[in-house]
Amino acid sequence: MSKFHVSLKKVVDDSYDVEIGFDLVNKLIDDLQFGLVGSRKKFAVITDSIVKDLYGAVICDRLREAGCQAEMFVFEAGEKSKTRAVKEQLEDAMLAQGFRRDCCVVAVGGGVVTDLAGFLAGTYGRGVPFVSYATTLLAAADASVGGKTAVDTPLATNLIGLFNQPKKVYIDVAAWKTLPGRQISSGMAETVKHAMLGDAELFDYLEAHMEEILAGDPDACTYIANANCRVKYEVVMKDERESGLREILNLGHTVGRAIETVSDYRLLHGEAVAVGLVAEMHLAMRLGHLTEEEMSRTVRLLKRANLPTEIPEYIDREALVKKLYTDKKVRDGKLRFVVQDGIGAMVEFAPGVYSVPVEEEVAREIIRSM
Amino acid sequence: MSKFHVSLKKVVDDSYDVEIGFDLVNKLIDDLQFGLVGSRKKFAVITDSIVKDLYGAVICDRLREAGCQAEMFVFEAGEKSKTRAVKEQLEDAMLAQGFRRDCCVVAVGGGVVTDLAGFLAGTYGRGVPFVSYATTLLAAADASVGGKTAVDTPLATNLIGLFNQPKKVYIDVAAWKTLPGRQISSGMAETVKHAMLGDAELFDYLEAHMEEILAGDPDACTYIANANCRVKYEVVMKDERESGLREILNLGHTVGRAIETVSDYRLLHGEAVAVGLVAEMHLAMRLGHLTEEEMSRTVRLLKRANLPTEIPEYIDREALVKKLYTDKKVRDGKLRFVVQDGIGAMVEFAPGVYSVPVEEEVAREIIRSM
Repeated sequence: MSKFHVSLKKVVDDSYDVEIGFDLVNKLIDDLQFGLVGSRKKFAVITDSIVKDLYGAVICDRLREAGCQAEMFVFEAGEKSKTRAVKEQLEDAMLAQGFRRDCCVVAVGGGVVTDLAGFLAGTYGRGVPFVSYATTLLAAADASVGGKTAVDTPLATNLIGLFNQPKKVYIDVAAWKTLPGRQISSGMAETVKHAMLGDAELFDYLEAHMEEILAGDPDACTYIANANCRVKYEVVMKDERESGLREILNLGHTVGRAIETVSDYRLLHGEAVAVGLVAEMHLAMRLGHLTEEEMSRTVRLLKRANLPTEIPEYIDREALVKKLYTDKKVRDGKLRFVVQDGIGAMVEFAPGVYSVPVEEEVAREIIRSM
Repeated sequence: MSKFHVSLKKVVDDSYDVEIGFDLVNKLIDDLQFGLVGSRKKFAVITDSIVKDLYGAVICDRLREAGCQAEMFVFEAGEKSKTRAVKEQLEDAMLAQGFRRDCCVVAVGGGVVTDLAGFLAGTYGRGVPFVSYATTLLAAADASVGGKTAVDTPLATNLIGLFNQPKKVYIDVAAWKTLPGRQISSGMAETVKHAMLGDAELFDYLEAHMEEILAGDPDACTYIANANCRVKYEVVMKDERESGLREILNLGHTVGRAIETVSDYRLLHGEAVAVGLVAEMHLAMRLGHLTEEEMSRTVRLLKRANLPTEIPEYIDREALVKKLYTDKKVRDGKLRFVVQDGIGAMVEFAPGVYSVPVEEEVAREIIRSM
């Protein structure tokens, strides 16, 4: 018997910038042309059937004008496209077009596009660089910081994926005006979540400016985009691999993701999260960490954002309870939840421990009461 | 416009041990039970339809006896199973069995198993730890060091995958005796490749002991397993991300992988590589880096290992030339090859540059001449 030691200790620098502003296409093209991804000149612009005409084609054209090779790869818009099958179709299309390890992926769109394209980039040729051009509030709130990429499967959301950091993220606040109101509201759910879990000041700002944000006011939108990055960054920076603290970003998602799946995506991600936030506030109240008053304030805010705050009629409650077990925090067969501590903070149950086991019966009671 | 800097610089330690010896199941169980993968107690034993009965079931049973939860996930043996579809089937089976982020993958088998299971582990729950129990000479030679995992697609081999380091590798030399002779020979191709590209002493050893190794002589097999790890490790350690030096491990593979695909896997991986090695020796001779005498010595050695040294009759030569363009080294639409410098060394064309562009016509002439 003999032993070989393979020594692979090294310094890795995955740092990147998030650029926030109005119409950042020029900036994107400049960056790609001049060094952001080295000397790469082949770009796979991945986008969806809606964003294609708004930004995808423009970016593709501009890259070509700049002397690069660029092709657009389009999939059907919507959360239902976030699958291994769509990833495979995109990969095959890229392979057929001759894209190899020397390419760069440009993800243009909302969270579904950046999740899917970021995952694809991470496994294409064992990893090619990618940048994200985020066109939705949801992507700004959820997908720009953290490096989480994934697809859904019939049995669980976001369980197949990677931690993969982009080379740069562009948050084009001007693009929000192209979104239907329901999408803006959906993105607002993650923003409210960020306020609830870590930024009481942001919560106050939302209470004061909700209507301006929904109307696309430039200053209000920029403030929101910045605040989202800041809250998420502070959490992620302290815990990049989601070992402890980062779990607090799951607030509203334990129930929210389950609702999203059981609703068969009739609810948008943010809508499901909004209902999940309310469900998990009920838990926080039961555990003595949230007052009735804080609960009502938050429900009022969610309603002003045109978000649902009750579990829809058509959702099978028992199926929902069962679906909770597909959550990534489940350990040794037990449900676990993160719990908010008033508005703007989370409960730390022990040093570095932010989730707590919850009996199935408790979860069932809360779900049945909504 | 405002900018956010996401700072993610850190030290990563992916170091691991390769244990080489006879029947290492006890060692594996001990390691898994006592700390190698922390407190994890859920194991997904991934294996193929052949190795299942030889090692998979035993390892699964022993893990259960040790008080762990273990399930076996089996796929059809053979290179044709190294696909996204099989990865997906395994993932769905694991999800259905309730495996989540707190599990550990145990890959038991040859290179196909370790490639597929290593890739799966890297994207399951955005990454769970895995160990490899390598039962073939090929896995010992090729898959134990380097962290390369991947699947094949209709258009290219190994282009979808990850760099993912195992927590530990076990090379069970006793398992080689369970292999059909053709598999042993296939593994020998990678061993000869290692000797050709970086270890003249190993080449001499193979010339002196080929028949003992093929007969499964314990000392000779252990020597070979060690030598393979050493050669590959020395290359990989210096260049983990395959930016330059590591390309030399591609010797024989530029043509070999293309033959493997065009033969529709009628040739085993190592058999295709053996033919690829001969083709690329022709190139080295044309470029003045290899003598006729070194060529004949190597062809004799490959023949003693019962490996093919000519392109089979049934291979369409022109399809083979076209298939070369799916190679990962292709840059700006040009074929590139690494070139050996006599026996035991490789040509460094410029500092850190080990591959050289080759005209399609030159590749065609060599292929047509074989």
